[in-house]
Amino acid sequence: MSPMQPEFLAQFPEKLRSVGRIVERGIDALLQPTTSGDEIIRPKGLLDAMRYAVLDGGKRLRPFLLIETAALMDVPPAQALRAACALEMVHGYSLVHDDLPAMDNDDMRRGRATVHRAFDEATAILVGDSLLTYAFDILADAQTHPDAHIRLKLVQKLAQAAGLGGMAGGQWLDLAAEASPRALTQAEILQLQAMKTGALLTCAVASGAILAGTSPGQTRALLTYAENLGIAFQIADDILDVEGDAATLGKQAQKDAERNKGTLVQILGLAGAKALRDQKLEAGLKALDEAGFGDRAQWLRAAAHFVAHRES
Amino acid sequence: MSPMQPEFLAQFPEKLRSVGRIVERGIDALLQPTTSGDEIIRPKGLLDAMRYAVLDGGKRLRPFLLIETAALMDVPPAQALRAACALEMVHGYSLVHDDLPAMDNDDMRRGRATVHRAFDEATAILVGDSLLTYAFDILADAQTHPDAHIRLKLVQKLAQAAGLGGMAGGQWLDLAAEASPRALTQAEILQLQAMKTGALLTCAVASGAILAGTSPGQTRALLTYAENLGIAFQIADDILDVEGDAATLGKQAQKDAERNKGTLVQILGLAGAKALRDQKLEAGLKALDEAGFGDRAQWLRAAAHFVAHRES
Repeated sequence: MSPMQPEFLAQFPEKLRSVGRIVERGIDALLQPTTSGDEIIRPKGLLDAMRYAVLDGGKRLRPFLLIETAALMDVPPAQALRAACALEMVHGYSLVHDDLPAMDNDDMRRGRATVHRAFDEATAILVGDSLLTYAFDILADAQTHPDAHIRLKLVQKLAQAAGLGGMAGGQWLDLAAEASPRALTQAEILQLQAMKTGALLTCAVASGAILAGTSPGQTRALLTYAENLGIAFQIADDILDVEGDAATLGKQAQKDAERNKGTLVQILGLAGAKALRDQKLEAGLKALDEAGFGDRAQWLRAAAHFVAHRES
Repeated sequence: MSPMQPEFLAQFPEKLRSVGRIVERGIDALLQPTTSGDEIIRPKGLLDAMRYAVLDGGKRLRPFLLIETAALMDVPPAQALRAACALEMVHGYSLVHDDLPAMDNDDMRRGRATVHRAFDEATAILVGDSLLTYAFDILADAQTHPDAHIRLKLVQKLAQAAGLGGMAGGQWLDLAAEASPRALTQAEILQLQAMKTGALLTCAVASGAILAGTSPGQTRALLTYAENLGIAFQIADDILDVEGDAATLGKQAQKDAERNKGTLVQILGLAGAKALRDQKLEAGLKALDEAGFGDRAQWLRAAAHFVAHRES
């Protein structure tokens, strides 16, 4: 395995923030009252709520993974930016809908009021709907990439990652599990989490690979990296729910146990969960080595370490 | 103007039902537990609720307009079917979300319990999200049309019709108007309705024209037909809300006044609204004549008459 060069790990938070600022500007430019050359009316109140939902917050991890995967094959960040913004809008939509009273009923997100609290519930539903819908408009547009087949692959990959067989299906399974008296098995938790959070993280890497035109073998290795990163991400999340505090998290801690959410921490204990997290991290890094990008993949390596050991 | 041949009008309800049955089978085939050749897991409870939302109900007017517009240029119904089903899923999603307690709070739809009543609110939110997302997966897939550029146009047209600048934006404007002490002007109502209901009806005709490859001039004329049909449709809806009864409508009548919804009936009176409806119907039929399809457009002509004078 290529050794992780410590300077990449140390510099990773600043690198992530730097890409995050590019994404922030990209989303800001896409969410303007009018778009050049057309007369589409965008209701100001709804647009403002969409901006509240997706600007000034979030680590932009999914856009980062997309942009840095594309960069493995020298795709400049500007060329991957629209796809990255579309992906982040879908992530944002999922948070807005998950926070709704009928779902997770959260009042706080990233240290401020959730969209249905800051505006109202109907607006929050429509903010999510509109962000999701807009993502496909962005991806299908010729500005995203000159090759029509690449744009179609981006659309279909995102739709499958976000839908019934991915994120939305995983959220439904999560709510069904909460309401069930039976505890989930480890295999069921892994399946649920692969859909609920893993699918969109994997979609980020897959979309980067689509833009970069990586070989089938490299793509398979990158997806294995992403799947393992997704599991490590989720276990880190479950650990934070137990060990973290509300101030650092920007949301209430210890909600999983309160809500009867089955997590790997409950099944394996903290030590067992941490061991599995580190095992998935190693598996992800090994797959990345096998993809054969060598030192070019240092930021993706650092991302995996960061995700597995993050503190918020 | 080409005279409307009365037999087309008399046969229209059966024609609409016949196309509706094809669409029903198309949607049924798309909403199965597994799709051939892949291993995507579709949670059964969520899939069942999606099927409840979009099967066994509805006039299938949007798929009809799409399929019959494509048929003007000899596109067989089977070739337009996937696009028609995607469009109907987006229509279905909009009804499920609009019925939610935080939006229109409706218990009944098409003579049976709304999705959040038959299942629960969280499921209804995810049913809508999943139907919307799936529509873009369907459109982007090579099975929908061999030409990648046509598929991209379908994706982008639907996303723009359904999103912030179309249906979702119109729904937000409608809710904002209900909450406002100020009554909407006629121009504002027309704008709101063009977004809330007109955009998706126009998208149906536009999608048919994309599949058929009609000329720019024909396409413009077809869109004028669709825009006028959309206004006539909405006025007919407002009239039904005043004149209709719950048994025929399958939902509660007289809800508009109760909810402080501004309608053209309130501004123009019943007689004035009917006059405007008929004027829009004539304008739509005139545009259809100008498109130059002659007798081939008889079903679209009949559709406009049907929509303007429907009783449910």
